Amino acid sequence: MRERGILIVVSGFSGAGKGTIMKELIRKHSEDYALSVSATTRQPREGEENGREYFFKTKEEFEKMIAKDELIEYAKYVENYYGTPKDYVEKHLAEGKDVILEIEIQGALKVKEKYPDTLLLFVTPPNAKELKERLVGRGTETMEVIESRMARAAEESEVMDKYDYLVINDELDKCVEEMHRIIRCEHRACSHNADFIEKIKKELKGE
Amino acid sequence: MRERGILIVVSGFSGAGKGTIMKELIRKHSEDYALSVSATTRQPREGEENGREYFFKTKEEFEKMIAKDELIEYAKYVENYYGTPKDYVEKHLAEGKDVILEIEIQGALKVKEKYPDTLLLFVTPPNAKELKERLVGRGTETMEVIESRMARAAEESEVMDKYDYLVINDELDKCVEEMHRIIRCEHRACSHNADFIEKIKKELKGE
Repeated sequence: MRERGILIVVSGFSGAGKGTIMKELIRKHSEDYALSVSATTRQPREGEENGREYFFKTKEEFEKMIAKDELIEYAKYVENYYGTPKDYVEKHLAEGKDVILEIEIQGALKVKEKYPDTLLLFVTPPNAKELKERLVGRGTETMEVIESRMARAAEESEVMDKYDYLVINDELDKCVEEMHRIIRCEHRACSHNADFIEKIKKELKGE
Repeated sequence: MRERGILIVVSGFSGAGKGTIMKELIRKHSEDYALSVSATTRQPREGEENGREYFFKTKEEFEKMIAKDELIEYAKYVENYYGTPKDYVEKHLAEGKDVILEIEIQGALKVKEKYPDTLLLFVTPPNAKELKERLVGRGTETMEVIESRMARAAEESEVMDKYDYLVINDELDKCVEEMHRIIRCEHRACSHNADFIEKIKKELKGE
């Protein structure tokens, strides 16, 4: 039997390249990872599929999920709920897949509090200049939006040290492999090997 | 400038192969690691050199080191002191080398308490049967000694879960590379990147 998967939360500054890294990680190592699918009450957009981009729920359904503690974490943005359904995550962890949640910092810290074995990864560019250049380089945002993203990054940087590992996004391929390596190593953490430890303890006692 | 090294403590059951793994790790990656040299008050044996196997000290010298807090940890066995001199470790960490201490469990936990950023690695065979076979296979120990080692391993297994990572010694080469990977990943831990985090925080604030 495959060992139980690890819950991984990936956060990072807007523009740090989280999305690209995770897509690449899952493409290269599809047997190892599952990307968590969030539930939301917002309307599906053109081309979005229920269960692929999101699980689309009514407000009543979502609030029932909250009441029944069926969400790992949730938040409300602009009148819409977003959250992580427990059953989806639990099913993949039990199958031995590492489940990746891409959520923002406040949510990430809440998950860690509730599930202390969660691995928190923070994606960052090598420096602030690079971050700004990437946001400008997208060419899709106004200068005002860019400045507000930079201000938000400054705020977020205050809690970076609450994360377990930094993933410095300098070069995509290197960065993807580094994230993969960090996660593989985590499988050797004593906190994820309670079964092995219990077994060898018993054997040594001759039980 | 090279980033500061990490202090690593390696412990494990007698017969688990710690010594061989560490020798091989340092042989393969000599630029990355320094093996800590202990101070002791016991007499040098044939072929041992001061500063290579041990720093040989008189009882008075050793007790002066204790009084001046010049040891990371120390213990007394059968009338002799053994300890880890701070200055040797500090010098290599500052040079960017990861310094490896091979010490037993009680000492390891004391080091972690004093230096919380220490990486604690526990070397274990895949199961208890394998451990016994290795001890028997050495052919150098009486059955009585083997039984007492197994009893000690049973005791030690009680605190295995206080370590950070398990290094399962199934196959030497694989195990050495796994230890190396775990240590490399540790360099990405937020706790070892306080300087990077401070720097990007300041940059983002436009300081």
